[in-house]
Amino acid sequence: MKKFGHHDARVRVRYAETDQMGVVYHANYLVWFEVGRVELMRSLGFDYKQMEADHCRIAVVEATARYKYPARYDDELLIRTHVKALRSSLLKFGYEVLRAADGKVLCEGETTHILCDAEMKKRTMPEKYAERFRSLGIESSK
Amino acid sequence: MKKFGHHDARVRVRYAETDQMGVVYHANYLVWFEVGRVELMRSLGFDYKQMEADHCRIAVVEATARYKYPARYDDELLIRTHVKALRSSLLKFGYEVLRAADGKVLCEGETTHILCDAEMKKRTMPEKYAERFRSLGIESSK
Amino acid sequence: MKKFGHHDARVRVRYAETDQMGVVYHANYLVWFEVGRVELMRSLGFDYKQMEADHCRIAVVEATARYKYPARYDDELLIRTHVKALRSSLLKFGYEVLRAADGKVLCEGETTHILCDAEMKKRTMPEKYAERFRSLGIESSK
Amino acid sequence: MKKFGHHDARVRVRYAETDQMGVVYHANYLVWFEVGRVELMRSLGFDYKQMEADHCRIAVVEATARYKYPARYDDELLIRTHVKALRSSLLKFGYEVLRAADGKVLCEGETTHILCDAEMKKRTMPEKYAERFRSLGIESSK
Repeated sequence: MKKFGHHDARVRVRYAETDQMGVVYHANYLVWFEVGRVELMRSLGFDYKQMEADHCRIAVVEATARYKYPARYDDELLIRTHVKALRSSLLKFGYEVLRAADGKVLCEGETTHILCDAEMKKRTMPEKYAERFRSLGIESSK
Repeated sequence: MKKFGHHDARVRVRYAETDQMGVVYHANYLVWFEVGRVELMRSLGFDYKQMEADHCRIAVVEATARYKYPARYDDELLIRTHVKALRSSLLKFGYEVLRAADGKVLCEGETTHILCDAEMKKRTMPEKYAERFRSLGIESSK
Repeated sequence: MKKFGHHDARVRVRYAETDQMGVVYHANYLVWFEVGRVELMRSLGFDYKQMEADHCRIAVVEATARYKYPARYDDELLIRTHVKALRSSLLKFGYEVLRAADGKVLCEGETTHILCDAEMKKRTMPEKYAERFRSLGIESSK
Repeated sequence: MKKFGHHDARVRVRYAETDQMGVVYHANYLVWFEVGRVELMRSLGFDYKQMEADHCRIAVVEATARYKYPARYDDELLIRTHVKALRSSLLKFGYEVLRAADGKVLCEGETTHILCDAEMKKRTMPEKYAERFRSLGIESSK
């Protein structure tokens, strides 16, 4: 049983995001993961723009995507995002990309982030943000 | 007879730049125009990175592209760039995108730029850059 | 007085769409123009995916954008799209990109398209689509 | 001691590839990985375009990138690519992205691919391609 919540962001596949194989070019899923985590933050009552202005940047240190079925032009997609881990300077999100029409999972992935200040020095997550992330539930404590 | 020079930058079409029509997605030509003007500057002995560090940004205020024939995946292209106009704060480039294999012109376009400082305020082109641009020849004085 | 209608599509600026000048990279507006015309079609009761399956592709032959004020990360934007011209094989759209928060016009532009079949041969717009575009009103007959 | 070869492709960071953090947006590394594997194939005497025309597509099923140091605008980069695994229908590449100026490793990653025909059905790698990949040496037999 899942003890953590998630947020569903919605995107529609743009023509620009397809390639000549007739499906979405794989790098675009990382852009959608970004949409997913940004909208998750908004759903928790703050926005990443404000966090950045507050000298809290979440620099990506690792990203993985596993592609199951191709997304196609004009598909409506849900970017289902949850918090996988949160520790002092580290934040990890998990993602599922689902086709809205039938709920089929097209892609899964994770991104790992380090909290940095404006000069890209590692820093600790301020409690006001950490408590919001925790309010959603966190997949693991590892 | 052309009284102005140009510079040919070379790019190869990436899979990411194609779309499901099997050709290059049209917005990518604007990215190649950028490659064209940046490499033109390098050929004149300075680089845009340095110009930006010198508080001279060339913000795009207008861009036009006319598409003749599609570029395709893995095509080698020449981005033929020249200076169309240069006046105090205004800089205008002209472009032709040619298929390297046969010289066919695939796209033509122009971009117009305003010189700005780091705070995006309009400023005059420093003479050290202006003279380099003029050394190549300028299409028009209008 | 405007005798033609328009459709407002909504996009939010993604981090991926910004550049190191701290604003949206200019080529992305062409991608949003595409979102604008695709959503205009959907508002008229058909979708471009279906039109393409029906051997009606609208290949871009010219695109222009005039940049007034920069869009920034996380801005919500309206892509206000109307039909500028419609003649047998030619279709022309006009666009305004407005900041949703205050209605400020950030960018204006046009794209011109030629109707093509699946083999990229010029063809005439089927009446079933033409009448939908005309139902919105068309800016000019030129 | 490494028993396998690699190929170095060269790219220069485009303005379009930066984001407002002043560094390269992380999804672009996946595009460069694609440049790396395509140029590796070209160095082995065939090109991916021809392989695709030959009904051999290498669909991405997994991609991972680990970001060490940021690439910046105008940096010249080497995309160092090798073959990690090759088994009937599976092909796996490994990548290092190095700054050309000083050889610093900025990013590492892997992509896993399944060989597919034009209808996206799994198929076996034709021997004519397999032997070329093997000629470079393969990191592992797992």
